[in-house]
Amino acid sequence: MKIEILSTGDEVLTGSVVDSNAAWIAEKLLDKTSGKILRHTCVGDDINHIADAVKEISTRSDIAIVTRGLGPTADDITAEGIAIAAGTNLVKNEDALKSIKDFFSSRNFPMPDANSKQAMLPSNAVCLYNSVGTAPGFFIKINRTVFFCLPGVPSEMKKMLSDLVIAEITNMFGDKKNVNVLKTLSLFGLPEALVNEKLIGFENRFRDIKLGLCAKFPHIEIKLYSQIHHKTEKENFFSDACTWIKNKLGKWIYSDTGESMEECVGNLLKKENATLAVAESCTGGLIAHSLTNVAGSSQYFLFSGVTYSNQSKIDLLGVLPSTIKKYGAVHEKTVKEMAAGAQKIANSTYALATSGIAGPVGKSTDKPVGTICIGIATQKKVDSYQFCFSFNDRRMNKEIFAIKALDILRKKLLCV
Amino acid sequence: MKIEILSTGDEVLTGSVVDSNAAWIAEKLLDKTSGKILRHTCVGDDINHIADAVKEISTRSDIAIVTRGLGPTADDITAEGIAIAAGTNLVKNEDALKSIKDFFSSRNFPMPDANSKQAMLPSNAVCLYNSVGTAPGFFIKINRTVFFCLPGVPSEMKKMLSDLVIAEITNMFGDKKNVNVLKTLSLFGLPEALVNEKLIGFENRFRDIKLGLCAKFPHIEIKLYSQIHHKTEKENFFSDACTWIKNKLGKWIYSDTGESMEECVGNLLKKENATLAVAESCTGGLIAHSLTNVAGSSQYFLFSGVTYSNQSKIDLLGVLPSTIKKYGAVHEKTVKEMAAGAQKIANSTYALATSGIAGPVGKSTDKPVGTICIGIATQKKVDSYQFCFSFNDRRMNKEIFAIKALDILRKKLLCV
Repeated sequence: MKIEILSTGDEVLTGSVVDSNAAWIAEKLLDKTSGKILRHTCVGDDINHIADAVKEISTRSDIAIVTRGLGPTADDITAEGIAIAAGTNLVKNEDALKSIKDFFSSRNFPMPDANSKQAMLPSNAVCLYNSVGTAPGFFIKINRTVFFCLPGVPSEMKKMLSDLVIAEITNMFGDKKNVNVLKTLSLFGLPEALVNEKLIGFENRFRDIKLGLCAKFPHIEIKLYSQIHHKTEKENFFSDACTWIKNKLGKWIYSDTGESMEECVGNLLKKENATLAVAESCTGGLIAHSLTNVAGSSQYFLFSGVTYSNQSKIDLLGVLPSTIKKYGAVHEKTVKEMAAGAQKIANSTYALATSGIAGPVGKSTDKPVGTICIGIATQKKVDSYQFCFSFNDRRMNKEIFAIKALDILRKKLLCV
Repeated sequence: MKIEILSTGDEVLTGSVVDSNAAWIAEKLLDKTSGKILRHTCVGDDINHIADAVKEISTRSDIAIVTRGLGPTADDITAEGIAIAAGTNLVKNEDALKSIKDFFSSRNFPMPDANSKQAMLPSNAVCLYNSVGTAPGFFIKINRTVFFCLPGVPSEMKKMLSDLVIAEITNMFGDKKNVNVLKTLSLFGLPEALVNEKLIGFENRFRDIKLGLCAKFPHIEIKLYSQIHHKTEKENFFSDACTWIKNKLGKWIYSDTGESMEECVGNLLKKENATLAVAESCTGGLIAHSLTNVAGSSQYFLFSGVTYSNQSKIDLLGVLPSTIKKYGAVHEKTVKEMAAGAQKIANSTYALATSGIAGPVGKSTDKPVGTICIGIATQKKVDSYQFCFSFNDRRMNKEIFAIKALDILRKKLLCV
């Protein structure tokens, strides 16, 4: 089963919006159907360009997911473009009208006149009900291809694809075909080339599994992909391959379930009933922000002191003025005092501290941009580390500094 | 001049990587050339699929930017796909070989054998020198289209497009054509529908300017676009239109230069020689992270206390235990004490404080998910505000809470 993805609209075409819908749809369909993705296309708000793209797809693929351009305004013309390609007209679709009316009445609003335009669908299209927005979707067969048209708002598109489209596809194509299986292992701390080298031999050993490396700065994902015949095999299909990879890459792999570094650290802290305080200089709040992106993090995360100025390191964390004077803010001795200070203030089990040079300014001859000192306080002692990364980009440096600090804590927690 | 963008590679096709290169390229070409973007396409690591896409483009457009698939490994096959479409072979390109050798010698590394593959280009291609990576680019004319092929690593692609490709395009098409002009105004705090309503009448008033609204959560961009005949007009072309829009939308617009909310606030603080301290509960470090993403922020940003636990609000910021006991952590009285505490500790001109419910847990009957209290301390007094946003998503809530707090500070700074 061949699948294509079509985005319509000037926002994506001109680069005002990054087309992250396409990536989400591709991953979802690979996971939930037996299809292969053939192509993504994006065209602008031009009725003929949409019709041309639809006609081309209708000669190549079995399924197409079309997003955007189902809104109530004049430049929302996806339904019209599809109708031209299908050689039909737009007609009022009663199911679509009901979807729109239901949406407004569930929110106690009268339906504005403008929205009735969204009930005009190609004459032989089947409506896809939208319970979370005003734009009903629809599907229609043109030549060999079934086109599923969905709104561009990510939350609406995702719900309709998950709840309705997958079921339609399974219904149309499901029984005859294989099942895709996917697995992702997440790794931090080794360069891609070295990971590649360590995995030499995988393809000979596991001939029915396709292995891919994907650098998603600051971490790397190892993707395993295969097609199998029976859904029942799905659960444990990759277990031997995972064991093989983990033997090669050991503790560099922090997750085989898709959890992020901060989720992983959080779970380890919870397991130990431990708490964490942080003192951040160069990471500027990013460690705290990452940790608190995880729902329930208040269970273990107590406090971060983003002590950007030297004075606040002294006043808040109790770093000795003489330490900063003698060694500077970016020094292992300073981050040790920062970590110890944060641990003491918050009365936490662990504390992490960072001080470094994210750039572009602040470097010195012995401390180039990319230098990071990390302090870690456990119940037994306070350790420190110094590294230097070569990205020469402020945001990348902040990201790699933050994940490096969390990874150091993760490795300590694994040894408890 | 018609332009297309082609991405190759399984990572993008299967959704492992979001194709943000395409958006960047589209924006850059619209800004720097007179071209119109016709289409984006993505195909996988399949030589025939690449060749097919290239052949199709070569009948439609004048220019194509192709990215990815120029690396040293076996699945890097873009050059081969292009050669098939061009009806030619790959040959060793001496300029490309020099580009690769120069890269390694500048880093004092010997060139690995594997990299010599990257010097194999279609026989009539012209090399594009890559000074920051191993993959040389190239350009080649096929039918009516000039294909510019660049590596997928964003930093390499961006540098080569900016430094080399724009100049080639200007050289090939520049003199005969018009110039695109673009302008972006950034706005926060009004819903898209209301902004739309306030801008009714723009199109009649400015008939040669295309106006677009683009919701880039949590802010909105108003895009102005036109084509003009003389570059010299470019500078002030939009000034009347900008004045008109600013009259309609007033202080909701925080930038007409592309600067972010945190840059905007930073510049206002610098202008006033003022400093800022922050106390964050529900934003969890995101305000500090945003502020410190701006190079030079140490000039005005002193400290953020990410006081996630109630105890740390008391111990660190001096919030009264009785206040938390009586009113709870999410209350205007509490954030006032947090802001006053942060201002006192850091001895700053201003202080911001946040406490709210990012979700999914923590809500109560009178404080649903999305509730945010914001405190702001100036030299004169301490104010507080309460809002409720309805996104019901932890990360979106953190983002809207953080930008809302910064926007309140921005408006105070504008009135000084």
